[in-house]
Amino acid sequence: MSSTAAVGRWDDRHARAALSRLGEPGDPRLSRLVAELGATRLLELLAGEQDVRGLRTDVAERLRGLNPARDLERAARMGIRFVCPGDDEWPDALLDGLDSAGAVHRRGGPPVGLWVRGPLRLAEVVSRSVSVVGSRSATTYGADVAGRMAADLASAGTTVVSGAAYGIDVAAHRGALAGGGATVAVLACGVDRAYPVGHRALLDHLGDHALVVSELPPGCAPTKLRFLTRNRLIAALSSGTVVVEAAVRSGALSTAAWATRLGRVVMGVPGPVTSAPSEGVHELLRRGEAHLVTSAAHVRELLSPAGADLVSSPRGGDRPADALSARALQVLDAVPAMQGAGAASIARTAGVGVGEARTTLDDLAARGLVTRFGHAWRLGPTAR
Amino acid sequence: MSSTAAVGRWDDRHARAALSRLGEPGDPRLSRLVAELGATRLLELLAGEQDVRGLRTDVAERLRGLNPARDLERAARMGIRFVCPGDDEWPDALLDGLDSAGAVHRRGGPPVGLWVRGPLRLAEVVSRSVSVVGSRSATTYGADVAGRMAADLASAGTTVVSGAAYGIDVAAHRGALAGGGATVAVLACGVDRAYPVGHRALLDHLGDHALVVSELPPGCAPTKLRFLTRNRLIAALSSGTVVVEAAVRSGALSTAAWATRLGRVVMGVPGPVTSAPSEGVHELLRRGEAHLVTSAAHVRELLSPAGADLVSSPRGGDRPADALSARALQVLDAVPAMQGAGAASIARTAGVGVGEARTTLDDLAARGLVTRFGHAWRLGPTAR
Repeated sequence: MSSTAAVGRWDDRHARAALSRLGEPGDPRLSRLVAELGATRLLELLAGEQDVRGLRTDVAERLRGLNPARDLERAARMGIRFVCPGDDEWPDALLDGLDSAGAVHRRGGPPVGLWVRGPLRLAEVVSRSVSVVGSRSATTYGADVAGRMAADLASAGTTVVSGAAYGIDVAAHRGALAGGGATVAVLACGVDRAYPVGHRALLDHLGDHALVVSELPPGCAPTKLRFLTRNRLIAALSSGTVVVEAAVRSGALSTAAWATRLGRVVMGVPGPVTSAPSEGVHELLRRGEAHLVTSAAHVRELLSPAGADLVSSPRGGDRPADALSARALQVLDAVPAMQGAGAASIARTAGVGVGEARTTLDDLAARGLVTRFGHAWRLGPTAR
Repeated sequence: MSSTAAVGRWDDRHARAALSRLGEPGDPRLSRLVAELGATRLLELLAGEQDVRGLRTDVAERLRGLNPARDLERAARMGIRFVCPGDDEWPDALLDGLDSAGAVHRRGGPPVGLWVRGPLRLAEVVSRSVSVVGSRSATTYGADVAGRMAADLASAGTTVVSGAAYGIDVAAHRGALAGGGATVAVLACGVDRAYPVGHRALLDHLGDHALVVSELPPGCAPTKLRFLTRNRLIAALSSGTVVVEAAVRSGALSTAAWATRLGRVVMGVPGPVTSAPSEGVHELLRRGEAHLVTSAAHVRELLSPAGADLVSSPRGGDRPADALSARALQVLDAVPAMQGAGAASIARTAGVGVGEARTTLDDLAARGLVTRFGHAWRLGPTAR
């Protein structure tokens, strides 16, 4: 900075705000140097002549005009706060995983801070959260399922995290709002910007009633790289990721890959095998990289502590014949529906002895399953 | 038999034909006694006064009028043959699994013989076979997928086994015929009967050009029990079972359960989570009891020896930018589409040094991804 930026003695928050503008999200050099040197010392080094692991060269052009105090003031005037490690709102339980991810992935470092807009408290709302992501070119089926699932999750107290994109993302945010629950939009640009532009009203609504989050300072534009690192943040800010429709090149699959790297639960909603937007989800499921879920109940079961929220497998309604032994069913099967048959004939058809047939028929008659008239038997009212 | 049936000195085939009429399919007492005593000796005991493990009592009514020689003659006149263990056509490799299944399941015993109608040779056609089963109340989606998958399997030389029921079964048989391949219908009644009646033409066609198989002698009617034991035979006569749509009480799930017991590959085709006929399949997949498949290629991959028939994962077409490094992509992302920008501005947007930006822009220009005019750069023709 020196000659190129307004300098002072920066505190940690100002230094982190500056670094969030200087670096690219997820750059592990940045997060490692912050951990080693502290944000203030690192910023002093970058503002001086000294290069540190190639970082100064990369950020040189961005040092011009850098003014974190002004950034923070302007953000505050727009209702945007900058949340840092150590703040009550900082979701360290979820973001700590990125420290080790940064060690193995080129873009896996933790954020230096998060720019946040909205009335909810970040750490609190994401402490019980699921990301619901998917294709921008979703089908009505995918959007319906995402919206319904998000509504069910949100109304049961699970925050729905997504990326505010067209298709599945917006269906998830809207579903969560419809369910009367919390939702968090994680952007690849500044939280003051509307991307896509068509979602300005949605993002303003989320900023007024929910939460919009980004690693990038206000004003920053989205880039391809930032979409990918944004996906890592969506995965990091939730206990599990549900993919609803994803074509084979969908960014939602990158979110799923990040969730896997971070040891989070990855889930996929199947769809018609004839539908291209479901192809990526089916691949995840086929390779065993995601759990199949068809409802919010399944999602809650996978995310809850062992034994809680268990979903019973669906089965049809009970029928009168369900309580019978296999041998009794065999006899019941042999009883004609309309014309009657004698016990010997029924025994022959069933493949049991006549004595057993007679005893069983009496028992079936007591249950209303067969009716006797003279020496003949036919099906009773409850068996039809 | 004695006074109640035409008696002679029965050979093994006649005795087995008699036992196939006396017993119920899958009764493990029957198959165990045949293994211990031989079919001829067992039949002599049952025809006498001696009870054997409760079996004589069960079959007493059926001993009247028993005449296996007449059964075999009548069957032969209808073009039906009775295939027994030891015959070339007997698929012992597949049916041997039922010996141990009979030890653990009430209805898991192997058949004493199989009544067969059609020009194909049973052991040969089922040596490479898959069963495709599912709901009788299938959707058009399910029927389309089953038909397409069966056609693809059959045209590649895999026999399609099913149960000739409405819905998925008939779609699978018709698909296999359309694919110009082999298909086998396994019935819960005699192979001379049409069940359901609406499939008489289909079953006659299969009897003329493919294969219809049953454990039950000609003339026998289907019962609930026989549908369940028929499902075990469908599973046993194929290397794997594909379930396409199955409501939670669908018989197709019993076929899948048999395939699991027999150590065969169980596969499921997903569908919309909003579709009740897909619910049973999703439960199988969710519990890890079936592999997700979306195409015949996936089925072949799962059934083939390790390494053969591997399906490559789908991916989108290659794009010019796919070959770039992440840093080069970062620079490309920063180049404006319409108005040009200088190298310093691009370096600032990208977060790289100016020197690196210049070198990278020259490389991108050589690939046609950016265009230079004066000191400015914008996206080139191949990048848009």
